[in-house]
Amino acid sequence: MSTRLIAIIPAAPHALHPLLGKTPLSFAAEAAREAGAVRVLAVLNGRNAAERAALAEAARRLGLESVVPDKPQGTAAAAASARAGLAGEEASDPPILPAVFPLLRPETLVELRTFHRKRRAGLTLLSAVVPDPRGFARVVRGEDGALRIIPENGADGAVLSLAEIATAAGLVRAGLVFDALRSGRKSAAAAGRDWQEAAAILCRRGERVEAFITPRPEEIVPLAVPADAARIRAALRDRVNLRLAQEGVTIIDPATAWIDIGVRIGRGAAVAPFCVIEGATTIGARTRIGPFCHLRDASIGDDVAVSASTVIEGAVLEDRVSIGPFARLRPGTTLRAGSHVGNFVEMKKTDFGPGAKAGHLSYLGDSRVGADVNIGAGTITCNYDGVRKNSTVIEAGAFIGSGSELVAPVRIGRGAYVAAGSVIVSDVPDEALAIARGRQAVKEGWARNRRERNEREKNRAGK
Amino acid sequence: MSTRLIAIIPAAPHALHPLLGKTPLSFAAEAAREAGAVRVLAVLNGRNAAERAALAEAARRLGLESVVPDKPQGTAAAAASARAGLAGEEASDPPILPAVFPLLRPETLVELRTFHRKRRAGLTLLSAVVPDPRGFARVVRGEDGALRIIPENGADGAVLSLAEIATAAGLVRAGLVFDALRSGRKSAAAAGRDWQEAAAILCRRGERVEAFITPRPEEIVPLAVPADAARIRAALRDRVNLRLAQEGVTIIDPATAWIDIGVRIGRGAAVAPFCVIEGATTIGARTRIGPFCHLRDASIGDDVAVSASTVIEGAVLEDRVSIGPFARLRPGTTLRAGSHVGNFVEMKKTDFGPGAKAGHLSYLGDSRVGADVNIGAGTITCNYDGVRKNSTVIEAGAFIGSGSELVAPVRIGRGAYVAAGSVIVSDVPDEALAIARGRQAVKEGWARNRRERNEREKNRAGK
Amino acid sequence: MSTRLIAIIPAAPHALHPLLGKTPLSFAAEAAREAGAVRVLAVLNGRNAAERAALAEAARRLGLESVVPDKPQGTAAAAASARAGLAGEEASDPPILPAVFPLLRPETLVELRTFHRKRRAGLTLLSAVVPDPRGFARVVRGEDGALRIIPENGADGAVLSLAEIATAAGLVRAGLVFDALRSGRKSAAAAGRDWQEAAAILCRRGERVEAFITPRPEEIVPLAVPADAARIRAALRDRVNLRLAQEGVTIIDPATAWIDIGVRIGRGAAVAPFCVIEGATTIGARTRIGPFCHLRDASIGDDVAVSASTVIEGAVLEDRVSIGPFARLRPGTTLRAGSHVGNFVEMKKTDFGPGAKAGHLSYLGDSRVGADVNIGAGTITCNYDGVRKNSTVIEAGAFIGSGSELVAPVRIGRGAYVAAGSVIVSDVPDEALAIARGRQAVKEGWARNRRERNEREKNRAGK
Repeated sequence: MSTRLIAIIPAAPHALHPLLGKTPLSFAAEAAREAGAVRVLAVLNGRNAAERAALAEAARRLGLESVVPDKPQGTAAAAASARAGLAGEEASDPPILPAVFPLLRPETLVELRTFHRKRRAGLTLLSAVVPDPRGFARVVRGEDGALRIIPENGADGAVLSLAEIATAAGLVRAGLVFDALRSGRKSAAAAGRDWQEAAAILCRRGERVEAFITPRPEEIVPLAVPADAARIRAALRDRVNLRLAQEGVTIIDPATAWIDIGVRIGRGAAVAPFCVIEGATTIGARTRIGPFCHLRDASIGDDVAVSASTVIEGAVLEDRVSIGPFARLRPGTTLRAGSHVGNFVEMKKTDFGPGAKAGHLSYLGDSRVGADVNIGAGTITCNYDGVRKNSTVIEAGAFIGSGSELVAPVRIGRGAYVAAGSVIVSDVPDEALAIARGRQAVKEGWARNRRERNEREKNRAGK
Repeated sequence: MSTRLIAIIPAAPHALHPLLGKTPLSFAAEAAREAGAVRVLAVLNGRNAAERAALAEAARRLGLESVVPDKPQGTAAAAASARAGLAGEEASDPPILPAVFPLLRPETLVELRTFHRKRRAGLTLLSAVVPDPRGFARVVRGEDGALRIIPENGADGAVLSLAEIATAAGLVRAGLVFDALRSGRKSAAAAGRDWQEAAAILCRRGERVEAFITPRPEEIVPLAVPADAARIRAALRDRVNLRLAQEGVTIIDPATAWIDIGVRIGRGAAVAPFCVIEGATTIGARTRIGPFCHLRDASIGDDVAVSASTVIEGAVLEDRVSIGPFARLRPGTTLRAGSHVGNFVEMKKTDFGPGAKAGHLSYLGDSRVGADVNIGAGTITCNYDGVRKNSTVIEAGAFIGSGSELVAPVRIGRGAYVAAGSVIVSDVPDEALAIARGRQAVKEGWARNRRERNEREKNRAGK
Repeated sequence: MSTRLIAIIPAAPHALHPLLGKTPLSFAAEAAREAGAVRVLAVLNGRNAAERAALAEAARRLGLESVVPDKPQGTAAAAASARAGLAGEEASDPPILPAVFPLLRPETLVELRTFHRKRRAGLTLLSAVVPDPRGFARVVRGEDGALRIIPENGADGAVLSLAEIATAAGLVRAGLVFDALRSGRKSAAAAGRDWQEAAAILCRRGERVEAFITPRPEEIVPLAVPADAARIRAALRDRVNLRLAQEGVTIIDPATAWIDIGVRIGRGAAVAPFCVIEGATTIGARTRIGPFCHLRDASIGDDVAVSASTVIEGAVLEDRVSIGPFARLRPGTTLRAGSHVGNFVEMKKTDFGPGAKAGHLSYLGDSRVGADVNIGAGTITCNYDGVRKNSTVIEAGAFIGSGSELVAPVRIGRGAYVAAGSVIVSDVPDEALAIARGRQAVKEGWARNRRERNEREKNRAGK
């Protein structure tokens, strides 16, 4: 018989709502694994087929085994449901960790397990002494050492004054809870109450029921009411920002830097106040992120300068790029080393060459731009003709005069020059000048005449 | 004689400075009404005619009756000034609530009144026990039960150590304070001290003076110094965000979501960090507001996606619109269902049709845009000719090529196509193509020659 | 022999990293001077020539005298190094203030010095009783009054429980520490430990060693770990914002207003949440700064309205300007009184005349714009031709139609009118109309034919 550690994770649909980019299910699975679990069984408490499918897919991606009960279950019943999955491995009491404690650290699970073993308990709850126990079931310790869990709505004044709360996490001797529940009253399966029922049944049967008081009660913020989610997010944010600071990143204002857990930032980098950095973003060494930036799945190199109010999603910035303020990169864009993108510039699916510059008010889409190209202010690639998206190619060293439209598909040759204000509809050879604009005409005195006419009209209207 | 509850609200000019979109005068009036007052008398403490007029206008809009003393008055004198307005309704002791406690809840007024009646007091102050009583008058309770109010600057060490502070709010038996003040010393009317004077006079006359210690001292933050305004704003923000969370709105970071009290948000909506949402804004169910958004008097439907750094004022967004980042809507704009507005796009007084798209770098003003129109990048409605604003009409299904100027007044017909880079000065028929741009010319080798000439000149200059 | 007060400031490279725009070295120098020091000696603890040069340059700019030891030194050794600089002025015991306490106020130094003199001590440390002493050396006071400093890593449990921490700041009788160190063990020079060594040596020699417990322990946050820098920044931010509030500035959310110490703001001005205001920025009376603004070295007049998401660096805004949202001013730009700059507008090295307007999507660079000029949406000055930057001049009263490019160098005359969508390549006389765009052509039915063709192709492809 194996004694490998197996963990059971009851998970409801809100276990899939990410907090700083990581789902409560993922937090629970990671804590269980870091605490030594070699198998993790998720009990998928979906209320309908769609919810169950979403949970199953998430479990699969995390490499978890799944148990799907017929209807949502409380902790103990969920553990019972997981029994089939435990066949042949019952020697190891499985930790049961509902996916509602994103702040719980693996060491708490380890300590819980050590306590459970030392006490030779049949069931050990995770409990905590908290300043504000309202809303939680309480642990009542009898003089004979027997332990009861009283739900808050069934408690009297004396119990309500107790500060030791019972969580829905714990360990149970394999096999025990299943038998207990089978013999128990039907209501034992009622979600949120069955833990207490299981404890009561086991007590009556003479089993030892214990509660391990965590030394880190600040981890016990369950995802129950929305205000808790905000508290959990803030605590996770502080953990992320502290870790980054320890890794040599300057977070100017840790209270206003929202950086997802999966983000990686290099030594010597700095993040200004009021940034949201999400997903699988990586940021290189000594790179500086200005205020009001929103980055998602961005891959940013070393020594990059990102100015205020820049939005980047799914783009790559190589080393020494400078960008912003007010720049926006969409997926499929790569800014090559040393290139510059300025204000009010948008790029989409564009490979922007090393040393190239697009300083102002431009849109480049479905483009390939060579090295050291200069894109004038107000340049627009007309990549959509109403039917399909077409590509623009601008070869190295070309100069695109300001206010030009490049009607794709079109190629601007190496070193070519497009005169300001041109609408380019056909390819421009290497080294050539292309010009496509109206000729300037001047009508002397026209503006004065018009103004005088307007004033006469206004005077007449005023009479 | 009626026993209807009447409230008296002394109000100084700073009672008009809004906090999260609501003035202290409005807070006071609402608290009084919710506590049961059927008439509210505002005592308008303006220092000059302009201030008094502004206060009077604000009182009128809130449906309050106004009393205008000759010069600014303290609480008790203000109450005395209100006497004329109380004629015939003196059986109900009027609560007196200066418009400086935006955090005070109606239930506190109710409890104050209940206490006042039970004690059969002539005057009952609202008091509070606070951690930091500095700057406040203190309540001194004598052994004989007699109660004195000592202003801080007149207090000795023993009094200063007391933590029970006297507020300028309370209830007074109708008629009593007026007689007392009339018989009192002139200085009794000195603003900020007359409450104490009134209490002292009434005590000497054998009337019962009481203080009701509020069970919610956190409400007692008077608008006295600027740091208090900041504390009050933060407390109001937390109340708004807690209420929204309870209503099913996800506020990612309640500490950085500044949402006015009058804003309404639907279930399942989410607000990212760093947003300012003001005025009469309404936001529909499941709509998502990205970071760095500034919304004012916006009417936003269900399932709308508002991306980062979007500014909306006085505009309507129907269901399933997507907008931003870096979009800006000005008053008089409506985005019809399912339309899309992208980055660096501004709209003003524009009706933007269902399914229409304006993705990049455009300005639409004084326009009507039909269903499923595609507005290319860099499109500009030239709505101002230096004299008047003119309208642009773009009928359903039209396609406006990128970089076009539409010189208003102008109409683009149903299904018409405007070639990229065109300056459209006259109407385009339905289903037609309009093109208005220069023809492209190419000068081979021009760019190379120019570069070589420049280099020669540079070399010559370098010599 | 002079008795002028001299201060010694040991400074490591991180003394040059600014906090809210001010370096720790500058904080230390200012505190010493405000406490009465007439000479300040900086001991420059650079680890290499570059670091020493940077420190020396910073010291020079602050008007400090410099001492450069061969290698980085602890506090006491630094004091010894400063000895040469103290020649002839040894009567005044020099305060020693390492540049790691940006929060320390001058009055603390004054009180420290008064204490030191009264006690006739040889050496007086600055100590503090703090809630969390972990990481600090502790002050141990013996029954005989003798005082020891125990570094944390050398302390036992009883010492670790002490809450009085020893800082590296203090005063020492001139000459004493130098002699002590000279006679001390070599290890006395080990950075961070020599203060304790010096105290121990002086004790053994029968000198009086004291510790002054600061009454303001919140000032004792040394710049040691990154989390401390964040705490210090937050405390400095709160000080700045409190001072501004006291000066009559409305800071809507003091927790999210990052305003550098050197910024000056006039009475009646207001700053919205989420702003970063840096450097030598000045803001006039009654000016309003919207949310998400990033200002650096801006000079802004009275009654200016700065809307959301505006970025200004090194520019001047005269009175009654309105700007934003989404505007960006670069160095060398001046907006004259009453002018208006709208969304998605960038200016660089531009003098923008009184009453002039540039409302949308424009770039003005290297320009001079006269009074009451109207710049249409999408106007671009083509100031760069690939070789050099050229100037654009637009005289008073001119009207630039939307979507125009002005190819510099070029001059638009007084009152002249540029037709929308023009590319202006040569000067426009006063009062003239200039027009430079393609003539509009229309092809009836073209769009319908194209659509039908596309659909036929699509159907064929779909088969």
